[in-house]
Amino acid sequence: MRIALCGGTGDIGEALALRWAYHTDHEVLVGSRDPERARGKAEEYETELDSRGVEADVKGFENAMAADRADVVVLAVPAYHLVDTVEAVADRLDDESVLVTPAVGMKRDEGGMHYNPPSAGSVAALAADAAPDDVPVVGAFHNLAAGRLANLDSELEWDVPVFGDDEDAKDLVSALAEEIGGLRALNAGGLDNAPEVEAITPLLINLAENNDTPALGVRFQ
Amino acid sequence: MRIALCGGTGDIGEALALRWAYHTDHEVLVGSRDPERARGKAEEYETELDSRGVEADVKGFENAMAADRADVVVLAVPAYHLVDTVEAVADRLDDESVLVTPAVGMKRDEGGMHYNPPSAGSVAALAADAAPDDVPVVGAFHNLAAGRLANLDSELEWDVPVFGDDEDAKDLVSALAEEIGGLRALNAGGLDNAPEVEAITPLLINLAENNDTPALGVRFQ
Repeated sequence: MRIALCGGTGDIGEALALRWAYHTDHEVLVGSRDPERARGKAEEYETELDSRGVEADVKGFENAMAADRADVVVLAVPAYHLVDTVEAVADRLDDESVLVTPAVGMKRDEGGMHYNPPSAGSVAALAADAAPDDVPVVGAFHNLAAGRLANLDSELEWDVPVFGDDEDAKDLVSALAEEIGGLRALNAGGLDNAPEVEAITPLLINLAENNDTPALGVRFQ
Repeated sequence: MRIALCGGTGDIGEALALRWAYHTDHEVLVGSRDPERARGKAEEYETELDSRGVEADVKGFENAMAADRADVVVLAVPAYHLVDTVEAVADRLDDESVLVTPAVGMKRDEGGMHYNPPSAGSVAALAADAAPDDVPVVGAFHNLAAGRLANLDSELEWDVPVFGDDEDAKDLVSALAEEIGGLRALNAGGLDNAPEVEAITPLLINLAENNDTPALGVRFQ
């Protein structure tokens, strides 16, 4: 399997790139708008993995080139770059591709972080609107603390609610989630259920800040 | 401490009444619009506790009478009965009272349960609007599976996000939550953070249905 991480130089992109390269044999493609930056970060990830005795082949590309080579394309970009990113990669996708959205719209005020979905209702709905009709969109990886996930020494016990309207695509993304040690995928229903999953992310940030804990993930039990 | 559970004959009211009577020495007052029903359920709870060797004094009252006698008043009613219930008890409250709202607005369609807040933005905001100005409103106990909580044999490991604008009232409710074995209270910020906490409840229902698990609570870790 080839996995492209558009925005793979950012926090959650880095974490997923490192984890898939560490725990699996999938080919990890780091995407960025700036191909130089993508190549630099890919080298950095290879060095980190090499220091742990894992010989990984992580390559960096401009986002569209990464998507072109991939079976699964993760849109690991801030919500406000989502549509731009989907448009940049759209003609590299086909009906065998799967788009994955982990992004959340949030705003901060004096009370902390708040869920702030786009007018489409959720970032996932925005992605589905922007994506070619034959490309399934799956929501996943919203509720992970990127810093702890990127630390390959972290022992995790976190859930990944996975939602979307294409069951095969959801199953594929769920399997990819569970190949990362310590993550459990849960079926969170269709794309209409995106807001409840996305909205957990600002809550996690507030809970960590208000309770003076490390960054938090979530476990349903 | 005296705790009134308005709607204490319903699922979450029953669970909290049993747990507080079981784990603490607080006086538990079961409220209902129908005082006969309240007294019947209070007796039922006493019988259940007695079978476990706990001699509890649980009494049933009409909601306003229960609130009149209580320090903490839990609005354990469906979201669409919330304003009626607050209005029914309002003149029994004073600036030493604390109102607690565990209710969530939800709707079901073919995709499952969805968060469906009132136009005030959240059930908690609705409660704050309806409550007398000097009575603090605290949100808590939204994300508990009532059936498992009511089963005193259940081993729980769940979190209770607690939010509100009055820190003393939040501290009091957090302490009451943590007196129930297996529950941990977390500070979820002010009333403006209600939607993110309330929205977890429909997600918990969907996750249990879609993944064929027992009813779920949540742990942030």
